[in-house]
Amino acid sequence: MTMHSSSETTALLDGIRAFIEPASLRTDADSALLYGRDWTRLYQPNPLAVVLPGTIEQVRQLVCYANDHRLALVPSGGRTGLSGAAVASHGELVVSLERMNRILDFDAVDRSVTCQAGTVTEALQNFAREQGLSYPVDFASRGSSHIGGNIATNAGGIKVVRYGLTRDWVTGLKVVTGRGDLLDLNRGLIKNASGYDLRHLFIGSEGTLGIIVEATLKLTRPLHEPNVMVLGVPDLNGLMAIYGVLRGALELSAFEFFSELALRHVLKKGLHRPFETATPYYVLTEFENPAGRFTDQALQLFEHCTEQGWLVDGVISQSEQQAKELWRLREDISESIAEHQPYKNDISVRISRVPALLEEIDHLLAREYPNFEVLWYGHIGDGNLHINILKPAEMATATFAENCGAVSEHLFATLQRHGGSISAEHGVGLTKKPYLHYTRDATEVGYLRALKQVFDPNGIMNPGKIFD
Amino acid sequence: MTMHSSSETTALLDGIRAFIEPASLRTDADSALLYGRDWTRLYQPNPLAVVLPGTIEQVRQLVCYANDHRLALVPSGGRTGLSGAAVASHGELVVSLERMNRILDFDAVDRSVTCQAGTVTEALQNFAREQGLSYPVDFASRGSSHIGGNIATNAGGIKVVRYGLTRDWVTGLKVVTGRGDLLDLNRGLIKNASGYDLRHLFIGSEGTLGIIVEATLKLTRPLHEPNVMVLGVPDLNGLMAIYGVLRGALELSAFEFFSELALRHVLKKGLHRPFETATPYYVLTEFENPAGRFTDQALQLFEHCTEQGWLVDGVISQSEQQAKELWRLREDISESIAEHQPYKNDISVRISRVPALLEEIDHLLAREYPNFEVLWYGHIGDGNLHINILKPAEMATATFAENCGAVSEHLFATLQRHGGSISAEHGVGLTKKPYLHYTRDATEVGYLRALKQVFDPNGIMNPGKIFD
Repeated sequence: MTMHSSSETTALLDGIRAFIEPASLRTDADSALLYGRDWTRLYQPNPLAVVLPGTIEQVRQLVCYANDHRLALVPSGGRTGLSGAAVASHGELVVSLERMNRILDFDAVDRSVTCQAGTVTEALQNFAREQGLSYPVDFASRGSSHIGGNIATNAGGIKVVRYGLTRDWVTGLKVVTGRGDLLDLNRGLIKNASGYDLRHLFIGSEGTLGIIVEATLKLTRPLHEPNVMVLGVPDLNGLMAIYGVLRGALELSAFEFFSELALRHVLKKGLHRPFETATPYYVLTEFENPAGRFTDQALQLFEHCTEQGWLVDGVISQSEQQAKELWRLREDISESIAEHQPYKNDISVRISRVPALLEEIDHLLAREYPNFEVLWYGHIGDGNLHINILKPAEMATATFAENCGAVSEHLFATLQRHGGSISAEHGVGLTKKPYLHYTRDATEVGYLRALKQVFDPNGIMNPGKIFD
Repeated sequence: MTMHSSSETTALLDGIRAFIEPASLRTDADSALLYGRDWTRLYQPNPLAVVLPGTIEQVRQLVCYANDHRLALVPSGGRTGLSGAAVASHGELVVSLERMNRILDFDAVDRSVTCQAGTVTEALQNFAREQGLSYPVDFASRGSSHIGGNIATNAGGIKVVRYGLTRDWVTGLKVVTGRGDLLDLNRGLIKNASGYDLRHLFIGSEGTLGIIVEATLKLTRPLHEPNVMVLGVPDLNGLMAIYGVLRGALELSAFEFFSELALRHVLKKGLHRPFETATPYYVLTEFENPAGRFTDQALQLFEHCTEQGWLVDGVISQSEQQAKELWRLREDISESIAEHQPYKNDISVRISRVPALLEEIDHLLAREYPNFEVLWYGHIGDGNLHINILKPAEMATATFAENCGAVSEHLFATLQRHGGSISAEHGVGLTKKPYLHYTRDATEVGYLRALKQVFDPNGIMNPGKIFD
C-alpha cells in the first residue's frame, strides 16, 4: 500500500461516492482525528478518509473497490481498543460501522439476538435486560465499544470466570471477506458439525480477514443479585489461596485484583478506601447471591481466610449501590492513570502460574527499572494481568517508549518461560506486533499468514496489524 | 491417491518399519476390518495397513512419509462415528491413536487436564471424578470414543443444554498438520488474543487438516445430584412449551425427546414403560437438584404443565438407580434398532424452529415414504433431532440406501428453508458429503477447500471426507 497523490486521492474518493452517499464519506480533519485512532495514543492518525456505510451491500462494494484499487481498509468499531488495531496512520480508508447499529431480530425461545456490528455493547446489554434476559460479557468500555469490535478482538472483561469470552456467545456471524464475499456463518445454531467453523477464525482476527457486519448472540437468564467483596491481601500467594477457597463454595462471577499503588490513583480522584487497613494487594470478587442464600457462607469463608492469614481486612456490599461503588475502585483505575501516559501490558498465563510469574516480574522491574512506577491490576481469576508502567513526568515520551520496549522484551521472555500470552484480551494490533513471536512460534505465524492470504489475497484488510 | 501394486505396497510398508516398530504396523485381515470402519456399515473397509504410533514424533514421521509418498492417511480414534469419517476403504493407511492414551498432566488450580488423543472419554471422566471434579461432555459412546475423535467431530451429546460441546472444553491442542508441522495451540490459557485461533479450526475438522495428538481440557466442579423426569407429551407444541417453562425455573442439564415408536424398540429389548399411559412423544429431562432443593418446584411445574394439557403423565426419579434406568429408555434406542440397519439423520435447527420443522418432515415422510418406519429422538433442547429410518426387512440394502438418498434430498431441502444443518454433531464424513451444499453455500465451501490447502497441500489427510 502506498500513499496517494492529491489527484489520485480525489479520483479514489470520487469513485467511492458512486456507491456511498457523499455525507457518509468524510475527509475533514476532525473526522480524521476521531476515526483514525483508538484508545492508544502512540500513533499519528492519518487516514485517507472515513466512510460510514449503511448497508452490507455498501460494505461489500467498498471491499471490492478497495481490491480494484489496492486501497487499504481499517474496519472501525467503538475504537476503545488498546493495541492500535483500529489505527489508520498510513493513508488507509477507515470503514466505520457506527451507522449499522440496529438490533435486527430477537427470539425468546432461542434466547438469541441478531444485531448489526455497530451496535454498542451497552445498548445490547440493555436490550437483553428489557427482554428479561442478559448479555453477560461486560467491561469498562461498555458505553462505547461495538459488538463488531468485541468480536474482532474476542473481548473478555470482568465476568470471564463465570460467563466466558465474547467467543462463547457468538452463534452466528455475517462477514464480508477481504475478497468481497459475504459469508453467513452458523446462523444461530447451537450444534452444527458441517465442516470447519469459519466463525471462530473471524473471532479475534482484528479486522485482518474481512469486516464483521452482523452477529447473532446467545443471551442467558438474568444474572442473580450480586454481592461484592473487597479483601485486603498481604501477599501474592494469599491471592490464589483465597481464590481456591471461594470458587469452590460460591458462584463467583468476578475475581479481580489491584495493587495498593493502583488504588492510590483512584483515591486521588475522590474515591474512598474500602476499609482502613492498607495492604499491598486487594481482591475484588463478585458472587451471585439470590435471596441472600450464600451470605452466611461468604462470611464464614472470610473468617477462614482471615484465620489462615491470607487476608487482613475486608468489606462486603450491603446494597446494589455499594456494590457499584466498590466496583469503581477497580474499574476507574485505567482512567485515573491516563494522564501518566501508561505503557500497558495485558498478559495471561495459566492461573496456577500467576504467583510465580508475578513474583518474577516484580523482581525484574524493581531491579531493571527502579524509577518507573508500576501498577498491577487485572482479571486474576482467569490468569489475566494488566501491568501499567507510568511515564515519569520529566521523561520525554519517545525515551519512555524506548525504555518500555526494552522492559517488554524482558517481560515477554519471562512470560514465554511460563507458557503465557503477550495479549490476553487487547489483541495484537500494532503495539504487540513486535512481540508476537513470544507467544506464537514461527511455524504458527506462517500458518496465520497463509490464512490471511486465503481471505485477503491482496492484503487490503487492516494491513500491518498482527503481523507484517 | 491411487491404489498400490503389491510390490509397491511392500516397499511402502518397509519404509514405515524404518521408524515404527514392526508390531505396531498391522496388515492382517482382522485389523483391516476392525480399524477400517466406524459405526456406519455402508462402506467396505480396505486399508493399506494400520499403524499404531506411540509418540508424537512417530506421528510426525508418518505424516512426512505420507507426504513423500503421496500416501493417504485416515486418523482413527474410537471409531464410534456415524458419518464414515474414520472409514478407510480406498487403500489408505489408518493411523490409530489408541496406544497414545495416557493422561499427562493435571492441575487442581487450573482445573485442567492434559491427555493424549487416544484417551477414552470415560477414562477421562473417571479421572476427573477422582480429582473431585468433572468432565461433563457425555454421550452413549463414552466407553469407546476417544478424546481426539471427540475433538475432531466437536462431539456434543446429552448435556449440551447446560455444559456445551467439546469445543467449549478444549483449552489446548497439539496437532501435527498435513504438512508435518507440530503445533502447540493455546497451551491451556483461558485468555489469549494473539492472532487467529487455529485451535478452533482443528476442532470439528474430521481429520482432514492434520492429526490431533494431545489435548488440554478444562474440568468443572462435580455435577450436583441429578433428578430425571420422563413426561408423556401428546403433541409437538407441548414439547417446546414444557421446555420453556422448565428451563426458566430449573437448572436443566438435559432435555431429550423420543417418540412412542422409538420407545417400543427399547421395550422389546426388555425395558419397561416409564408409566402406563402411551403418548406420541416423551420428554426426558434431567435437572441438578442439590439436597432436593428444587423437588417441590419441579412437582409444581409438572402440575402446571398438566393443567395446560402439555403433558398427560410422568415420573420423577427417586434414586440414582432409577435415574439411570430412566436414561436407558433414551440411550438404548440407537442400539435397539441396529438390527434394522437404520438410515441415520442428525440434523439441527434453531430451537424455535423445531416444532415447525418436525411437523413438515413428519408430513413429508408420511406422504412420500408411507412404508418406512421412522423413529424420532434427540437432543431437542439444543435443536438437534435424530431421524432414523428403518430398513423394511424385505427390502434389499442397496434399494433401501437409494430410497433413503431420495428422502435425504427432500429432508435437507426442507431443513435448508429453516436455516438448519445437515449435521448437528455426527460430522460430514462420507455419508453427509453429498448434502453439504444444503448447509454451506458454494462460496463457503470454496474457503473450506482453500483452508485445507494451507494445512494439507498434498491432500494426504483423510482425503474424500467432508468434501472432494
